[in-house]
Amino acid sequence: MACPLEQALATMVTTFHKYSGKEGDKYKLSKAELKELLNKELPKQMDEAEFRRLMNDLDHNKDSEVDFKEYVCFLACITMGFNEFFKDGSTKQPRKK
Amino acid sequence: MACPLEQALATMVTTFHKYSGKEGDKYKLSKAELKELLNKELPKQMDEAEFRRLMNDLDHNKDSEVDFKEYVCFLACITMGFNEFFKDGSTKQPRKK
Repeated sequence: MACPLEQALATMVTTFHKYSGKEGDKYKLSKAELKELLNKELPKQMDEAEFRRLMNDLDHNKDSEVDFKEYVCFLACITMGFNEFFKDGSTKQPRKK
Repeated sequence: MACPLEQALATMVTTFHKYSGKEGDKYKLSKAELKELLNKELPKQMDEAEFRRLMNDLDHNKDSEVDFKEYVCFLACITMGFNEFFKDGSTKQPRKK
């Protein structure tokens, strides 16, 4: 049985492919696929304006798609945020939209 | 209840702190803490020579410690490897030591 950390990494991979395979290049997230992933998998994090800014930041080659490497960098940034929150040990609630 | 992807990111954070708090700077992994984390959380991945190379690669400022950002970069690299394996859909088994 895989360890929790291994399962976590596997979840990051399978979650990407759950959405990337829906349309177009099955190894990249289109705008619609990324939006669906965020809405369903990271519901509290993103509103429309932030989504457009995020898509713009992630889509380095401006092909309106996000590849796995860009996706992992994005998750790494979120994890850094989680870590700060964890380190603070504060009871701060995530920002309400 | 947090979504699987959120839980995965939280696992990455809590796993780091499970080991980083044991000795020295509680927000950094010492050599011993990193080795224990790898042995217990990613058992199939690393042998001694690879561990020394890894520690050397991760420890950019040569303070013999790995901070959270370096840890997340490391996990991102492993996840990229998982993704290639997943994409191949091959039945290749991880290298036996």
